[in-house]
Parts: sequence; C-alpha cells; structure tokens
Amino acid sequence: MRVPFETLKETIKKAFLNAGLNEEQAEACATVHAQSSCDGVFSHGLNRVARFCDYVSKGWVDPAARPELLHARGAAEHYDGHMGIGVLNAQFCMDRAIALAKEHGIGMVALRNTTHWMRGGSYAWRAADAGFMGLCWTNTESCMPLWGSKEPSVGNNPFCIGIPHKDGHIVLDMAMSQYSYGKLQVTRLAGKQLPYPGGFDKDGNLTSDPGAIEQTMRILPAGYWKGSGLALVLDMAAAMLSAGKSGDVVTDDNLGSCGGCCQVFIAFDPYMFSSKDEVEAMLAHRIESVHSAAPVREGGHVSYPGERTAKTRADQQANGVEVDEGVWAEVCKLAE
Amino acid sequence: MRVPFETLKETIKKAFLNAGLNEEQAEACATVHAQSSCDGVFSHGLNRVARFCDYVSKGWVDPAARPELLHARGAAEHYDGHMGIGVLNAQFCMDRAIALAKEHGIGMVALRNTTHWMRGGSYAWRAADAGFMGLCWTNTESCMPLWGSKEPSVGNNPFCIGIPHKDGHIVLDMAMSQYSYGKLQVTRLAGKQLPYPGGFDKDGNLTSDPGAIEQTMRILPAGYWKGSGLALVLDMAAAMLSAGKSGDVVTDDNLGSCGGCCQVFIAFDPYMFSSKDEVEAMLAHRIESVHSAAPVREGGHVSYPGERTAKTRADQQANGVEVDEGVWAEVCKLAE
Repeated sequence: MRVPFETLKETIKKAFLNAGLNEEQAEACATVHAQSSCDGVFSHGLNRVARFCDYVSKGWVDPAARPELLHARGAAEHYDGHMGIGVLNAQFCMDRAIALAKEHGIGMVALRNTTHWMRGGSYAWRAADAGFMGLCWTNTESCMPLWGSKEPSVGNNPFCIGIPHKDGHIVLDMAMSQYSYGKLQVTRLAGKQLPYPGGFDKDGNLTSDPGAIEQTMRILPAGYWKGSGLALVLDMAAAMLSAGKSGDVVTDDNLGSCGGCCQVFIAFDPYMFSSKDEVEAMLAHRIESVHSAAPVREGGHVSYPGERTAKTRADQQANGVEVDEGVWAEVCKLAE
Repeated sequence: MRVPFETLKETIKKAFLNAGLNEEQAEACATVHAQSSCDGVFSHGLNRVARFCDYVSKGWVDPAARPELLHARGAAEHYDGHMGIGVLNAQFCMDRAIALAKEHGIGMVALRNTTHWMRGGSYAWRAADAGFMGLCWTNTESCMPLWGSKEPSVGNNPFCIGIPHKDGHIVLDMAMSQYSYGKLQVTRLAGKQLPYPGGFDKDGNLTSDPGAIEQTMRILPAGYWKGSGLALVLDMAAAMLSAGKSGDVVTDDNLGSCGGCCQVFIAFDPYMFSSKDEVEAMLAHRIESVHSAAPVREGGHVSYPGERTAKTRADQQANGVEVDEGVWAEVCKLAE
C-alpha cells in the first residue's frame, strides 16, 4: 500500500503532537521519519513511530530536554543530551559540527545521554545537503556477540559518512552487524533464507535461516572479527570523547533502545583545499569508474553508496511511500 | 627462525642505507618495519623491505622528497608528499594532526602524492603512544571488486583507529577485504583452506580455497556490500580532502603499490572533555566487560583490538622475532 509523502508526514506529525511534542519538534521529527520511509529505510521510518511515542509516554525520551553545552575547545564541542529527542539532538549536533567546520575546516561534536537517533544516515545526508562531508556514529546497547563470544556484548553501532555531490550525494550508512534484526524478521515472515549467512544457530553453525539466528541472538558482525572490532572501538571512542556511557552501561541501564547512548559528529569542509569544481570533477570521474566496472551479471549495474537510496526516494516521492497496512493503521490511530 | 629485535632492525637499517636513505630516514623506517614484524604483521615488516628498496631504485619512492605544506585552515592542514617515503610522510602527518589537536581539540591532516605507508596501524599506535586518539586511512590501487562487479575496482583501503590506554592501547587496523592477498598466499602454501569464504572462484561461487581466489582476483569485501561501500567512500573522502588521486587514478598511473595515493590523519585529544582518570576508568570497565563476555569455546578468551598484538610484541621482544629464512637471507644480502 502506498501513501503520499505529505499524508505520511502529516499523519506522523499528528501522532507526535498527541505524544506531547510541540509543533516545531513534531514537524522536524515527522519529516525525518517520513523521509526515512521514503528513502526505503522502513525500519526507522514509519515503523518506528509507535515505539517512539511509547518511549515518550514511559519517560525514556524527554521532549522538554534540550542539548546543553558542557565544554568547548577549539574545533570541538561537548553536549549533554539530557535524554531528549534523539533525532533533534543529533540534528543539532551535526549542525554545530558544520558551524565549527566553517570556522576551523573540521569540527567535532560529542554528545552524551541522548536517545535513539533513528536512521543514522539522516545526519550524513543532512551534512551533505549543507555542502559538508559528515561523519557520525553512535554506540548502542549490546545486540551482537563480540567475535569469539556467544552472547550479545557489543552494539551494532552504525557508522555513517556523507559526501556532497551535485548529481546525488554519496552516503554510507553502515551498521556493524551483517543484517539487522528487522531484516531477519522480514525475511523469516516471508518464508525466505538470507542471501548470505547472518549468524549462528543453536549448534554454533553459521546459518542463513533467520529464525534460527533470532533464537540464539548470535547475529554475525559484518566481516566476522572486523565488524566486531570496529563496533567495539567506535563504542569506546564515543564514550571517551563524550564522557558518556559505553555500550555495556547503556545495556545495563536499560532505558529503551539506545537510551543514554553517545554519539560523535564530525564535519569537514570539502572545499577547503581545492575548488568545488575540482572536487565535483574528481567525484564524477570516480563515479564513472564505478559505473563502468564489469558487472557480475550481464546488464548489471554497480552502484555507489546512496545511489539506490536516491532512486527509491524519487520513486516514492512521485508515487507514494510504501507502508505496511498494519503499521499504517496503528500510526493513524495514534494520530487521531 | 627467530632473530633478536635489535639485529632485525639494524639489518633492515643497513639495507635502507644501501638503498640510498640517510641515517635518520633509515633508522626511522627500519624501526617501523622491525616493529611491524615484532607485532606479528609480517606482511608489512621484514617481508616488505626488498620491495621498498626496489621501489627506491625504480624512482617510485623519492628519498629526497619532503612533505610540503600546501594549505592550512584552522584545525586542518594539507600536504603534498611528493612521492617521498610513505612511512615518514605518514609519521610526519600524524604528528602534525596531534599538534593541531593539542591546539584545537581535534586536528586533521590530508596528504596527497604519497607512497605506501606499510602497516596502517603504525600511525594509530603512534597517536596512542603520544596520548592521543588517532584515526587514519589511505586509498590504494584497485585490488578488490566492488560489490556487484567481477573485476578489481576499489582498493582495500585500510582504516585504523588507536585509543590510548594505560594497560595496552586499543588499536584497530582494518583493511576492507576479508583477507589480504598475503593471507591467501600463506594459506595456499600451507595447503590449507581459509576459515571462512574469502572470495569467488572462476564459476562465481564463494569459496574458501585461496588458490581459486588468487586466480580470479575476486577477493571478498569484509561484510560483502558493507566493506565495498566503506572502501569506496574512504577512497573518495581521501581524494577529496587532499585534492589528490582517487583509487582508480592511482591504479591507472601504476607507480607501484600505493604510489601516489592519498591519506587522512585525524587526531583527538581524548581528555579534552573529561579527566584522564575518568577515561581510563571507563576503558578499563569496558575492557572488563569484553573479557567477561561468555566465550564460544569453553576456556576461550574474548579480546579487544590490539590486545593480541601487544602479547605477540612482548613475546617477540623477549624471544626474538619470527622471520622467514628465505626473506631474511634476502634482506641480509641487501644489507651487505
């Protein structure tokens, strides 16, 4: 079922107003959720609206909180998110990083005590839309076993990079697990197998059976030991730079998914050392080389990160955003 | 065969002096190569000495070149490496990033026209030794197919993060391929299979047979599409920030492995927003949680990145560094 973007956004906005957000907050958050669905990231778009409203009602997200500047040092700033709305805290911090990069070439903001930022790529797209390269990551509660362990002991800690480009930004939005739990669920409900092994079954064997992985919670880090190591280092770095909670403490405190987590936002002026024309030409040339790489399948197309997102966005903006009927009905009820 | 660290270093130093490096250059480069072998990264330690000397003799590395400051902007600097010694260019740039971080909290140096930095982790260790968090990456020539392509179309672009810690630094050194070509070769020569699939055979099937992958050059990106996307974005970011060559151009110019590549070095003052004691306590707590994660195998040990390196280093410093006899004989000859 498809719903026009504006209808989707306005409905989500009403749900957020009913949850206690003010006009400005509801508008900004609804835009982010609707945009995520429109970009094909359904898991953190419409599908996450009800849970966010639930978190607000439980007091796990405080709409009255605002990010507080704790320290500033040169090109870096430090904020406490006070368990406010994760999306707005993250937007604020990426905007501050961009402001610092305008002044210093590069800027960094470390944020602690924030809540779920929903789709991490939103802030990389935001930086790119503003003409800056953005790099950001978050820690989260433990949902994935560290390599060599059989119990969840690290978060999937998304890592995102956005690079502005005139013909479509290059945006990577990469969680450290090979698949999300959402992907496992969707695949299981469709009665399908994963295209590649996504975790371990109860006997400790790698498997492509989503249900078997959901049982063990032994999802596979992307690249085995590599994704495990990167997830752990990103966790430590975020907690260190923000003087906040490491992932194990976020887990123990148990204030909802990502409640009390830390995030780092870095912005770079992409044109500080060469002209915009030169950068655009370099990127266009590199993209051309990507598109001309021999495809595995005849007629196949090799893409850069963000390319398919842009296509999905254009399609859904024109033809309406795909929604799950049950989820849509639930959000419509919250909007009543 | 084991060789004492000092003997290893002095022998490599003599080889470098014979290749035309001056005393100071030979000492610094020999230390890095010997340290890499001592840390267990044999591929970029002793095993890389002969090739480096060959590159100098071919003119692909210019020992007379020094990094030249092209631009400075706030917390960021831009250098041309002029095809000088990659190890020394990289050390210089990480040191400059640290100096900038001392002043601005965070500092970034973008370097273009440099040569192979050998082991990327060297510069993350270097930052951590100096008490800073270091983050760096490089682009390289295409050696790995982009996801969806069957021909090498992106570099394996190592990405490194170092975090200082009193009981042993946390250091991630991650190339974007699941395995290096060196690992494929070593595994094939030992008549073994890879522990997990490392690429595609000539029929396009995933395989753990190293020889079959060497034939196709279709090594697998870590995490399939994820490592592929990250490698490409790191390539573009390095070329953009340094106004240098993207990986496809490095490939076309064909000036030896990594000849003319770009690198980015970022340093963070880890204690800018909290005390060193607080940071150390957070890290110690997080490490304890890693060590107490239930292991897959009874009696197993879950490690953080850098932990096993530190153990290997301590062992080889005490008992001599493992060397391949053939490689050692070759380097001894270069040192004559």
